[in-house]
Amino acid sequence: MDDLAFEGIGGPVAAIDTPALLVDHDALGRNIERMAEFGRTAGVGIRPHAKTHKTSVIAHMQVAAGAVGQCAQKVGEAEILVAGGVKDVLVANEVVGPAKLHRLATLARQSRITVAVDHPDAVSALAEAARHHDVSLGVVVDVDVGLGRCGVLPGDAVELGQHVSQLQGVELRGLQGYHGAIQHVHGYGQRAEAARAASAQLQAAVDAFQQAGLATEVITGAGSGTYEVQGSSGLFTEIQPGSYIFMDRQYCEVGGRTGEVYEDFEPALFVLATVMSTPAADRVVLDAGYKALSNDAGPALLLDKPGWTYTYGGDEHGIIKRAGSAAASMALGEKVRVQPSHCDTTINLYDRYHVYSGDELIAIWPIAARGRSQ
Amino acid sequence: MDDLAFEGIGGPVAAIDTPALLVDHDALGRNIERMAEFGRTAGVGIRPHAKTHKTSVIAHMQVAAGAVGQCAQKVGEAEILVAGGVKDVLVANEVVGPAKLHRLATLARQSRITVAVDHPDAVSALAEAARHHDVSLGVVVDVDVGLGRCGVLPGDAVELGQHVSQLQGVELRGLQGYHGAIQHVHGYGQRAEAARAASAQLQAAVDAFQQAGLATEVITGAGSGTYEVQGSSGLFTEIQPGSYIFMDRQYCEVGGRTGEVYEDFEPALFVLATVMSTPAADRVVLDAGYKALSNDAGPALLLDKPGWTYTYGGDEHGIIKRAGSAAASMALGEKVRVQPSHCDTTINLYDRYHVYSGDELIAIWPIAARGRSQ
Repeated sequence: MDDLAFEGIGGPVAAIDTPALLVDHDALGRNIERMAEFGRTAGVGIRPHAKTHKTSVIAHMQVAAGAVGQCAQKVGEAEILVAGGVKDVLVANEVVGPAKLHRLATLARQSRITVAVDHPDAVSALAEAARHHDVSLGVVVDVDVGLGRCGVLPGDAVELGQHVSQLQGVELRGLQGYHGAIQHVHGYGQRAEAARAASAQLQAAVDAFQQAGLATEVITGAGSGTYEVQGSSGLFTEIQPGSYIFMDRQYCEVGGRTGEVYEDFEPALFVLATVMSTPAADRVVLDAGYKALSNDAGPALLLDKPGWTYTYGGDEHGIIKRAGSAAASMALGEKVRVQPSHCDTTINLYDRYHVYSGDELIAIWPIAARGRSQ
Repeated sequence: MDDLAFEGIGGPVAAIDTPALLVDHDALGRNIERMAEFGRTAGVGIRPHAKTHKTSVIAHMQVAAGAVGQCAQKVGEAEILVAGGVKDVLVANEVVGPAKLHRLATLARQSRITVAVDHPDAVSALAEAARHHDVSLGVVVDVDVGLGRCGVLPGDAVELGQHVSQLQGVELRGLQGYHGAIQHVHGYGQRAEAARAASAQLQAAVDAFQQAGLATEVITGAGSGTYEVQGSSGLFTEIQPGSYIFMDRQYCEVGGRTGEVYEDFEPALFVLATVMSTPAADRVVLDAGYKALSNDAGPALLLDKPGWTYTYGGDEHGIIKRAGSAAASMALGEKVRVQPSHCDTTINLYDRYHVYSGDELIAIWPIAARGRSQ
């Protein structure tokens, strides 16, 4: 196959230059199928969040497995998905400002677009943009179910829903209630309890919507940490997991139903790094620091080298230190895998995925929505 | 001028969509000139570090002010500089692996290239690549002056220097001794003391080089926190400051010669963000989180709104909270400036600078070396 190789495709993983963002293609596929199977069994729609993967390549894998569409966090991400042919996108976040509203509205010419709202002025501006472009935009009222970030309080949802109902250009579809912080509560039991408390907040708003005769066609929320408890509760019509496709150190450590490791999904995302300096027997330096591994969720995890640990050594360096008992050495030029602590923000540092199966590089996928923070 | 506007150029800063990375063009110019003036007065070359700005636009401003060239941390950054016409580049970091060595060697066809080394095998591979491409690569022996990252110990520098001297394809130019951590020591006196201790380590290696008859044509190191003490010591032929052009919250807080704020250079880099949600009177949400403001040096600083403070609210959100006494309110759609805690890693999240003078957007500059971590 060597004569067909392009940028190392068809060659071994060990030949990839570093730092590089590796995706285990087969583990990714199994994770997508596991979540799809959960959706079929629980009778809930799966709308995976593209803020994690940032590419329509994976979006289409998820849709092919049965996903109802995609979530995006930013208009710029939604543009990549729509341009890539995704037909149903929920911008699960508030959109403010004329430039973004115009961009969002024109996407509705190609795909079914829904957006979260939490302020009457923002909805009015959204409706005006929709009318200007002669499209209809779906709307879900965003409810603060305990996160303390965006969203109206459950008791205020009906008032905003009624405001939406009176506007031309927007169509009220239901409610969103997402709580990011509880996705990472440690311990299955504690996480389940937090998930039920968040669901109860959203349930109050759903009940009020139904009593007021407002649409509840879409009830959306939940993430990779609460998908099971919230997704099987009967409250949600769809759930929004993102990180389950890749996992990361932070998610692996939240604990599962039966053990310390959260094993519902497999780690499928790694950074390949090279030993670029070997100054001491118990300390070597990797070519991967803050610009290769995000640190908002704490340190990354060195794999395959028991007894050696990774710490950030600056923007471009990682310091690998050996505990007293570790036997293996690390040689200049050696390549090692590091698991990111947070997949979403680490992916945002790269322009492409290096996708492998077994020991072979099989594809390079562009991370087209990387950096599209507007 | 409106009819000439392109992407808002010629228009007001307030019209820029967010999150956006703002550069104060005039403050940037003053910072560049201040460092250039220091170099002229102290008789030391200024070789600014492009790991900060990542664009040949600013590199050329620095060279026009008298800089001897540029530093880069990665071959990918050096490629952008050389393609942009920078004629003298020091890769102030170890380069390991055949792909990078070939890329580095071919740059020497266009510009004068120097690279840091700390291992005999790495130098031998470097020399082989240089011979393969029929070029000469300059080399400085990297000395660990206390950082504990890359570099040889001062007592081992001569042995490596002699190894370099025996190889065809590489030319020994001198020594590098850079200590990143001391740049941010709080308090002018303590920082100066730490700088002198690092310089003493490097001096030992310089003395040994001279006794051995090895080249000391280039003695390079120092950064924006130690430029004055190290740059005026007589030890260095050139210094490597990067952040001085922009400053950031971390640098401003290290303390100056006479006060709590380090004022040798002016803040010139900001993130413009929009209030996207106003859920409570004492809490609003910005559209700028971990993907808009790096957090490896702690939280960013909200400007222009006394009594309100910024904390990260996730990848795409910032939570702005009001202390009890703050009078001003913050309205939906309002735009505010946030100072990054660390300029280098925040810049790495953006594809372009929005450059302004006064209240007018005057240019958009590509951050061409963003993400070039290989």
